[in-house]
Amino acid sequence: MTQSPSIDRLSLNQITTDRWSLREAAEGCVRAGVPWISVWRHKIAEIGLSESKKIIQDSGLHVSSVCRGGMFPAATAAERQERIDDNKRAIEEAAELGTNVLVLVCGPSPDKDIAAARGMVNDGIEQLVPFAESHGVTLGIEPLHPMYAADRSVVNTLGQANRMAENYTPNQVGVVVDVFHVWWDPNVYQDIQRARGRIVGFHVSDWVVPMPDMFKGRGMMGDGVIELRKLRTAVEEAGYYGPIEVEIINQAIWDTQGDEVLATMKDRYIEHV
Amino acid sequence: MTQSPSIDRLSLNQITTDRWSLREAAEGCVRAGVPWISVWRHKIAEIGLSESKKIIQDSGLHVSSVCRGGMFPAATAAERQERIDDNKRAIEEAAELGTNVLVLVCGPSPDKDIAAARGMVNDGIEQLVPFAESHGVTLGIEPLHPMYAADRSVVNTLGQANRMAENYTPNQVGVVVDVFHVWWDPNVYQDIQRARGRIVGFHVSDWVVPMPDMFKGRGMMGDGVIELRKLRTAVEEAGYYGPIEVEIINQAIWDTQGDEVLATMKDRYIEHV
Repeated sequence: MTQSPSIDRLSLNQITTDRWSLREAAEGCVRAGVPWISVWRHKIAEIGLSESKKIIQDSGLHVSSVCRGGMFPAATAAERQERIDDNKRAIEEAAELGTNVLVLVCGPSPDKDIAAARGMVNDGIEQLVPFAESHGVTLGIEPLHPMYAADRSVVNTLGQANRMAENYTPNQVGVVVDVFHVWWDPNVYQDIQRARGRIVGFHVSDWVVPMPDMFKGRGMMGDGVIELRKLRTAVEEAGYYGPIEVEIINQAIWDTQGDEVLATMKDRYIEHV
Repeated sequence: MTQSPSIDRLSLNQITTDRWSLREAAEGCVRAGVPWISVWRHKIAEIGLSESKKIIQDSGLHVSSVCRGGMFPAATAAERQERIDDNKRAIEEAAELGTNVLVLVCGPSPDKDIAAARGMVNDGIEQLVPFAESHGVTLGIEPLHPMYAADRSVVNTLGQANRMAENYTPNQVGVVVDVFHVWWDPNVYQDIQRARGRIVGFHVSDWVVPMPDMFKGRGMMGDGVIELRKLRTAVEEAGYYGPIEVEIINQAIWDTQGDEVLATMKDRYIEHV
């Protein structure tokens, strides 16, 4: 049996404790001995970038990624340019916070033409790459589950994300493997292999039945059906030994005291990931 | 602009008016001038097969399919054999009702090992094919949306269904294209082309945002984001000119008077499909 992953790789994706400010989350990670954190932009916005940077530096935590850029498709060229400009700010934030990964949630289509929206995603990434590269930031395309194809992202399989990323060097554009989004895919293991050298993030949670909510319904690792260890082993076989983010969007977990959430996620990480 | 499909191809999938018995549904179709019906097995079970057959024959309706066989994966060999036996009864029902299509909803996994469950689906189909063929019934593998991978079916893309079906002749095993399940797939148009000669059903509804319920949340055609006409044109270009089933699982539509549902679905079929 494959061993548990080292606690040195554990990262709190900040959305898991969404009620915590960045300072509270950083202090919580330090108390729990969680060495990494993934920072969300709405938390940076609450206190500003320089204060955020100071909190991270004082805490001694490493930043596994900034969540999130993307959201490229829009009805007008002006709106699409605004999205590009906002992505540039996200890249600057990632660089300032000392991570080389900006997670891209690529966005939904403004109308029924999903193929056109996918083209807008490609165009947006192409525009961003030089800016990201000059800041030492890799754009990590995160495919979202197909049930979010209408309202969150038109990038819905790892195979699709791979094809998009392969237009660039691995330092420019990579992929983020989130088990919640990809576990069901009959091609997932071959697509993880194909992503060798390009995986810039690995996110864990679980898929519970019945799902309490299509958005805020992810489960704690071990509570659902996902073969977490098999997927973790697969990304390692594809060369990824970086941080493992626990990213759980779940109202009941948000309503639980943060320290308790971190204690549980540490246990489950050791037992199930 | 592509024209509307002929009303001669319109089929009421009986789950759309789930409160109606088979007799009520048949009479409703006749009143509305809907020439086809897809019959569900729980409706046959209410009154028996011979009575069901008489209702269909008296109505003059054509049966586009019987829903549904499948549900192959199970924890024990004995349970899997029970599923095979039940599928054989479904094949007999399809043949008796005068349709050559049994829709397969292949079933969820009994445990976390989704690859093993997919193997059980392949094994089940292999066991059924000779019996189905001897009854003149084609097994139609319907891939279900990935959000149902844990609780309804481990067959989740048209590409996967194609690969499974291609082990057999098109008369033995085909695929059913339901827009709700496949619309999001970046490969859907190439997989429809690949299914040429093997498509044995085309189901329409719509994907609405926000979805009121993960199971009972499908929309009426035109109320959502699916490019219905583009998909209909694609299946025609792949050689399918058979019946088009309206299959909407939606509590609000179930709570609407059946004649009203049929009137709306006829209008929407002409306008959007």
